[in-house]
This record gives sequence, C-alpha cells and structure tokens, in this order.
Amino acid sequence: MTGSPEPAVGSTDQPHSGLEAVWTAVDDAGAVGFVHVSERGDPNRRYLTRVDGPDRETALVILPGTKNQPPQAVYCVPRGVVSDVTGFKQVTSDTEISRQIEGRPPTTATGQQVRAVLADRLGTTVSDGTLLVPRTLPHDAAVFLQEAGYELQSTPAVTTARATKTSAERDCLRAVQAAAADGLARSEAVLAASEPVDGRLVVDGQPLTAERLRRQINTELAASGVAPADNTSIEADTDVADRLPAGEPIRLTVSPRGPHGYHGHLKRTVAVDSEGGWERRAFIAAEAGLQAAQREIEPGVDISTVQGEAVAEVGAYGFAVTPDTDQSTQGRATATVHGVGLSTHEQPAVGAESQLRAGAVIAVDTGVVDPARGTIRLGTLFVVSEEGPETLIEYPTSLTPVDRTE
Amino acid sequence: MTGSPEPAVGSTDQPHSGLEAVWTAVDDAGAVGFVHVSERGDPNRRYLTRVDGPDRETALVILPGTKNQPPQAVYCVPRGVVSDVTGFKQVTSDTEISRQIEGRPPTTATGQQVRAVLADRLGTTVSDGTLLVPRTLPHDAAVFLQEAGYELQSTPAVTTARATKTSAERDCLRAVQAAAADGLARSEAVLAASEPVDGRLVVDGQPLTAERLRRQINTELAASGVAPADNTSIEADTDVADRLPAGEPIRLTVSPRGPHGYHGHLKRTVAVDSEGGWERRAFIAAEAGLQAAQREIEPGVDISTVQGEAVAEVGAYGFAVTPDTDQSTQGRATATVHGVGLSTHEQPAVGAESQLRAGAVIAVDTGVVDPARGTIRLGTLFVVSEEGPETLIEYPTSLTPVDRTE
Repeated sequence: MTGSPEPAVGSTDQPHSGLEAVWTAVDDAGAVGFVHVSERGDPNRRYLTRVDGPDRETALVILPGTKNQPPQAVYCVPRGVVSDVTGFKQVTSDTEISRQIEGRPPTTATGQQVRAVLADRLGTTVSDGTLLVPRTLPHDAAVFLQEAGYELQSTPAVTTARATKTSAERDCLRAVQAAAADGLARSEAVLAASEPVDGRLVVDGQPLTAERLRRQINTELAASGVAPADNTSIEADTDVADRLPAGEPIRLTVSPRGPHGYHGHLKRTVAVDSEGGWERRAFIAAEAGLQAAQREIEPGVDISTVQGEAVAEVGAYGFAVTPDTDQSTQGRATATVHGVGLSTHEQPAVGAESQLRAGAVIAVDTGVVDPARGTIRLGTLFVVSEEGPETLIEYPTSLTPVDRTE
Repeated sequence: MTGSPEPAVGSTDQPHSGLEAVWTAVDDAGAVGFVHVSERGDPNRRYLTRVDGPDRETALVILPGTKNQPPQAVYCVPRGVVSDVTGFKQVTSDTEISRQIEGRPPTTATGQQVRAVLADRLGTTVSDGTLLVPRTLPHDAAVFLQEAGYELQSTPAVTTARATKTSAERDCLRAVQAAAADGLARSEAVLAASEPVDGRLVVDGQPLTAERLRRQINTELAASGVAPADNTSIEADTDVADRLPAGEPIRLTVSPRGPHGYHGHLKRTVAVDSEGGWERRAFIAAEAGLQAAQREIEPGVDISTVQGEAVAEVGAYGFAVTPDTDQSTQGRATATVHGVGLSTHEQPAVGAESQLRAGAVIAVDTGVVDPARGTIRLGTLFVVSEEGPETLIEYPTSLTPVDRTE
C-alpha cells in the first residue's frame, strides 16, 4: 500500500478558480486591484500561485482587465528566489538596494514593488482608488499602501473560494488521504502485533512508546511521498514515560500534507485487550455520530446542523450533549466539523462561512470525552455533493487494532 | 546513524529569552504591553510560546510588571484548542457566541479577547496608551485595537531576539542538523550504489528518479523523528522525466524541522562518473568559499562581509564575481548567508539585522552557476562564537558520492 504521486493542481489547463474569484471580487467592488502580502508560506498564497513559495516575504498584485489591457497577476519575490509559477508575471526585489536608498526596513522593498506594479498599470503617479486586501494583510503593508493614497477594503474572496474544491483539488485530497490511510494502517499493524506486559504495550520485546509509533507512521507517510506535517499524534490518557497503555484508548491522528499542499485527515481510537464496556459503548456512539453527520451533509445545509446532529446522535448512547451536563458520569458527546484543504482547518466552519456547498471537503470528528475514563474519537473526510455525501477514502473503524497491511 | 530525540526547548527552567526581550522592549518604549496576532503557526508565536500552536488564529498579550502586579503573558486560543504552554495563562474564545452577539466576522473574537485581557489588566474601560506590535500584525487586528483607543508602534524585538540562539536552542539545532546529515548520508549511499545506463542513473535495475531519492531521504528523516518540512530537494540540470543524469551535478538539499521547530540545513553536490574538469574546479571553489566564509565569521562582523568574502574566494578559482560579468564562459560565483532557526531564513540577514552576534547560527551556501554547464552548491550551518566559528555538524564534502552509512 504505497501512495502514488498526486496530480499537481495548476499543472493542467484547468480554470484557475482562485484568480477568477479575485477578479470577480475586484469587479464587484469597483476596485482597482487586489494585493496580498505574506511574510512566509501561507495557504492563500499557495492557492493563488499553486506553488509552495519561499519562507520569505512576498506579494501578489492582481489587476482586472480593462478595455485596453488583459487581466494581470504579478508575483513579487525577494532577490534570489526562483519559482516556476504559471499565470503570474514574476518580479524580483533587490532588498539591499531599496534599503540603501530609502533607509527603511526591508519590508519596504516589497511595498515598493507593489506600488511600482500598481503605478505601472494604473498609469498615474498619484495613486488612488480602492484596493481589495485580505483582512490579514500585514499592518505595515497596509499603512504603506494607505500612505500612497489607496483606500483599503478587506475581502474574504480567497478564503471563500478555497471552501469549494474543484475536481482537481478533490483528486489531490483523495491522494493524500489514501497516503494517510496507509500511515494509519501501519500504526494499526504495529498495535495489532503488540502485547500487554504489566499494563504497558510491548512489541518485539521493546516498550511501545508513542514516539516510536509516531515515527513508524511518519516513515510510512514519507515513503508515500507526503509530508507528516507535524500533524501525526498518538495520544493516550495515562501516559507513563511515553509508554502506551494496554486496555485503554489510544488515539491515532494523521493529517499529512501532499506535494500539492492539500491535507488528509484520519483519526481512529484503538485499545489493545480492552475489557471495558464503556470504551465499546463510546466507540459505537462515535461511529453512529459519524454516520449521523454523513446523513446531514448536503449542499445548502449549515455546518452547525451537521455538528449538532452528530453530537445528538452520540448523546443518544447515554452521553451528555450540553456543557451544562458536563457532570455526567458517562462522559460528554463531542463533534467538530470544518473544511480541510491547503490548511488543516479552513472554511466552511462554524461561526464563519458555514453553509455547505457542493465540492467542499469537510473533516468530521466525533467522540466522547470523560475525564475519568478517557477519550474516544473517530474522524474522517467527506465530500459535499449534489449526489449525496461521499467518504473521501474509506478506512474501517475498529476498537481492536487490525493488521490491514497484509 | 539514527538521530536521538532532541531536547525540548522550554521544558526546562532556563530563562525564557523571548518573553524577556518583549518585556524589555515594552519597558524601553514606555508602552502598556505587546500584542501578537497570527492567523496560523508562525515562528514568532512558536518562539514566544515554545509550542507548535494550532492552524488557527491566536493572540499573545504580553504585559510588563507594575508596582502591584507581576509581568503577565496571556495566550488567546479558539475554543477547542488545548495546549500545554508554560509561562502563559491560556484563555479560550467562543467564536460562535461572539459572532452572534456582535454580527462581526470571527476574527473579532480574537480582538475582543485581546481587548478584554488588556482592559482587565489596565483597569480602565477607556483604553489608551501605546501597544507594541510586530510589523506584520494582521491589519484587521490593528484597526480593531486602534479603534479601541490604543496607539500602535511596531517592534522588531522578537525577530531580533530570535537571531541570537541560547545554548538550549543551539542543542536543538545540532540535533536536527545531525538528523539532516543522516538523511543526506542515505541519499549519498543510494547514489554511490547507482550505475550509469544510457546516461541515466539506475539502482537495483530501476531508474533512479529525483522523487525516489527524495522519498528515501524523507523516510530516513521521519525515522529519526524530524519533519522533512517540504524542504528536501534533489535537483539536476538536465531533467528527463525526473530521471537523474550520470556524469552531471546533482544537488541534494535537506532542511528538516525538529520536534522543537528548529531547522537543519545541509546542501551537497555530487556527480556519478563525472569526467568534467569544470565540475571539479567549481566544486573545489565552492569548498574554498565555505572555508573563506568560516574564517570571517565572528561577533561584530557584518553578514555581507562574510558573503562577500565567500564570493571573492569562489571567484578566485576563475569564476565571475559580479553580475556585470555574468557572460563569463566559466560561470558565476555565488554565496548566500543568513540565519536559520524556527524559520529556514531569518535574521541575521543581508539588508536586515546584519551584524553577527555570539550565539547566532547561520547557513552559508557557496557555489558556481553556469547556465551551460550546470550548478554546483555546498551549504552548511555555522555557529558564531567568541571562541571562533564552529561547524554545527561536520559532514564531508565529496563530488563523488560515498556510502557513509556503513
């Protein structure tokens, strides 16, 4: 079970949804353009450029078409950075020279590039008009543009566009989720081969630590060509010198990042030699919660409805569903639902853009938390579709670990 | 050769240099506090909190001590986020409730948390005074704080503090650099075992592709407990369907991230069955460039001096040292020097905080670029010290790949 290389979004002639969303927003607002500045790699920059940019400050300047000029997209990068970004004209700043001339901190080099690109296009030395910017534009860049005479208006266009995945993006997500499943299967196989000794798990005569298991998963992910992305976690509730306990829940979470930047997400809970009725009931409740969530997933539904139904279903197995009844001796039902893509936590999300749209890919985690007994959680990715919800990659649920690698 | 787990910075009682730098800056500016808001993980947040925070918006509010109150540091996180950050009081926002009350986008939840923390401490309902902020504070957070009555003043305190590593930070860097060396050794072993067939490299009867080699390195890194961090690259100048060429330079770069967030950096160039005098001369020039850079490294020296001396030394082997002579038929000498730590590219850097201080860890890359013949590069990490420069981890240089894993 080894993942194959994922398709590269942006390498084909598919429509570039990110740029189109920006051009539309600029048109709708009657703005002169859109400016994005980021200090280092961020998902919005990656979404628009389709490349994993440098760990340095860069700017994007996106200008709509006019009667005389086609739409334009410019990528401003520091000197020495080379990228094969398509759809953008790339310009390079000479930080050192700008600084010597202006006596300003290096960020000004980026600001000056942006101003030069705008002035070049807009054909005026006195700049004016409205610029759309993300709400997280660095404050110094905002002040610099305002001092140049532009009015800034924040737009959620990019994060909103990211909430709905294209077919090519879903292929990327499917490929990295398949690699996530391989990584999870590796850890399940190790756990299936483990034995309890004095209440702790042992494999091949060696104590099985969370770190050892995490490295085995990450090794599998790396061999599949995806990045563990610091998102692999092995959690137990009674942690003695990192040694994993027998008979108690162990939570396995993988959310690797594929070469295209998109993330998978799978979460399972297993217990080796569990004798507990509580664990089994909580596990079945979490499974039922996932199924209940899946039944609610369709375009137009609010994500909080999905989350609420999942919690209610878990609660129907005898667990508390509201914070008021946290004192329940059986534990509290939990569910979280949010979008996953270039970020592990993005729109749609409760409290933000919360309506599900066809094409969205969402993570659903359900479970039970009991401070005395432990925590059970299950999580997976679903695709929102007019044809009904689809589990992105099927991966079985089982409280007892199973070797699925054979 | 397997890396051992790195020491965790922040897990001991060592002085917390990041917070102290902020408190000092606040005192010096006569400010009421320091506010940092980031949309997702960023090195400054990690530096101050010493934990890898969530892929969500968070805020740090750092307040100096007064006559009646000790210094305070507050970490504002979204609901559902749990972290074991030490030295900070953690407060949780309820995005949904804030939004329902205010009808504002969710970011306001963070802003309101920050305002509440400030009002609580400063004991006024009408807020005023100066707040220090990083220059990259998200614009909406800046506007929100200004509307609340605070004056904002940007401070480089955190990025400046990061430029000088503590002994514990250097231990983290040394550990991840050792893992980087293991990863590089793995790729060298594979290349040493490869054979040229029709001008392309073959291992075990299979074509050796850049992707195959990259995965082998990343597997080794993951097994050592460090993250490849999308920084592993295998580059050749004549790329035919990703198959690596025989007799030509292949550049191997690893910059993994350890569990503490610090990065290693090693770059080597190898050629299998190279017959070229040019490659050998350029390789020796790059080696000499590294040595020349090392000789210049000491506290008080400007980083551009180190870079300039390295370029001059490479150039002394017959390569062009200025852009004007790019037309040289032998290629152009190059060198880059900058700090490495929680980011792969940080201060000290040319055009920014450029003076070397004792404790800094810097990456030096030297090489020769010739559009016709190829590119040779070598890179490693040095520690700046009063006792003379130290190579963080020694790793041999050899144009012919050598199996060093035995």
